[in-house]
Formats: sequence, C-alpha cells, structure tokens
Amino acid sequence: MATGTFDIIHPGHGYYLEESKKLGGEAAKLVVVIARDATVRSKKRVPVVNEKQRLEVVKMMKPVDEAYLGSTTDMFKIVEKIKPDIISIGPDQSFDLDKLRGELKKRNLNSEVIKVEGYKKSDLDSSCKIIKKIKKMEFDEKIFKTC
Amino acid sequence: MATGTFDIIHPGHGYYLEESKKLGGEAAKLVVVIARDATVRSKKRVPVVNEKQRLEVVKMMKPVDEAYLGSTTDMFKIVEKIKPDIISIGPDQSFDLDKLRGELKKRNLNSEVIKVEGYKKSDLDSSCKIIKKIKKMEFDEKIFKTC
Repeated sequence: MATGTFDIIHPGHGYYLEESKKLGGEAAKLVVVIARDATVRSKKRVPVVNEKQRLEVVKMMKPVDEAYLGSTTDMFKIVEKIKPDIISIGPDQSFDLDKLRGELKKRNLNSEVIKVEGYKKSDLDSSCKIIKKIKKMEFDEKIFKTC
Repeated sequence: MATGTFDIIHPGHGYYLEESKKLGGEAAKLVVVIARDATVRSKKRVPVVNEKQRLEVVKMMKPVDEAYLGSTTDMFKIVEKIKPDIISIGPDQSFDLDKLRGELKKRNLNSEVIKVEGYKKSDLDSSCKIIKKIKKMEFDEKIFKTC
C-alpha cells in the first residue's frame, strides 16, 4: 500500500509507486490510498486538483493495481479493510515510522512499514515546486480565454 | 501513434491515450510523441514542465508502450521513422485532418489519421485550466519555503 496526495503528477510519484510495488515481490499488487481534500487542506495546503480527479490520474499510472480515497476521520480505516502486507512510505513523506508501527500494533494490524529510499531527481520534483513555478511565470492572458 | 504536449497531466490525457491504443486493436502498441519545448513555445505557450520531465511522466502512464521527443524542425521525421499504422488526433487538438493526410501522402506515408471522439470531462480537464486555477489561488507563502 502506498499513500499520498498526488496533486500534480511528477516523476517522483512514479518512482515512489514503482519502488512500492517492487517491495512486495514479483506477484505484488499495489493499492494506493489518495488523501482526501479535507485532509490535505488541514495538513498541507489547499489541493489544486480535487480528490476525485487525483484518484483518476493515479489509476492511470503503470504500477497501480487499485486506488481508493482515504478516510477523512481515521487513516487506519482503510488499512483495516485492505490489510496490506507492506505499507510503503515515500522518500519525502514525514511519517514517524515507529509511531506508525505502534499504532498499527495497537489495532492488531501486521503490516510491515518500509520507507522507500532514494529519490527521483527532476527539475520539478514536487507538486509544490510546480505550483511555485506557475505562480512566478508570466503568461499571455489570451491563452486563458480559450480554457 | 499519439502526440501532444502533456504539460500537466489530467484525466483527458489518459482518455486520449487509452482510446488511441484501442484504435489499433488488441495487440496494438502505442507510441507517443511529445512536443519539444521550442515547438510548444512557438505554437501554444511556454510549457511549465520541460520536455525531459514531460516525457518521463508520459512513460509512466498505463496505455503507453513507447514515448519519444518529437523533432523541433520537421514533425514528419518521427512519423517516417516509426511508420505508425494509425496517427490518432486528440479530441481537443486542432489539426486540419485533410491537410495532414495530404502531407503524409506526399511523403509516401500510409498512416491512417483518426480523430478520437468523445472527451473525458473533469473539473480541470486541460493543463491550461490547471495553470489558470493556480494563478487565481492564494497560498500561504510559507508552503513555498520548503520546496
């Protein structure tokens, strides 16, 4: 199981999803849980793309077998439902791994927690960088008239 | 063969690529040609994401078997190299189909030109709409400090 916001897709997302799938071995099935709009708003920032569209785009990506929206109230709900062998944490995700392992144990969930190492370096390797770049760019206003 | 800029990925890209692959029948191979930065700049607008990263992201999408950067000088160069059975035109692409068919004939290229019908409707169903939305949104400046 991999998780995230996946607001604006960049190669780092692909790397994280590929590596997550590899963790499960050859016949692994990768399930992705997409953070809800309300969760992103409270923990990070207002998402640009809404949860429905973020889910659709993640489903289009090669390593993904299944994808679902998370819960707005309890992040463990979907873990209890899917019971993943492995929960994969992205290189740029700031979960406290030991705390997460403790919370899983408390709920009798036996998922292993593994942090994906390495990072896919690219020019715009986070949704935040893409948003920041767009904010700084100057566009001819005419292009927005047709969209 | 499908073509495009693929600046910021949205569900419409997935729809176009899936439909393009379907046009070729069951064992079809989908080759995608990504417009070069210079071409996008001269025909559309400054691309947000550079050609290398746009290529990487397209390669991560399920229907795509192969993807390449186009030529900056002659769009038919790569058609001559790949010799696709079908060139698929996106629902929102403004090619003059008959003119394109004529140009292919002149070059002894037998690719069939087919326009993908229908359209994947979503909240932000073009890169332009995503850019426009970001331009209008207000973010807490703090979020940009860590990216």
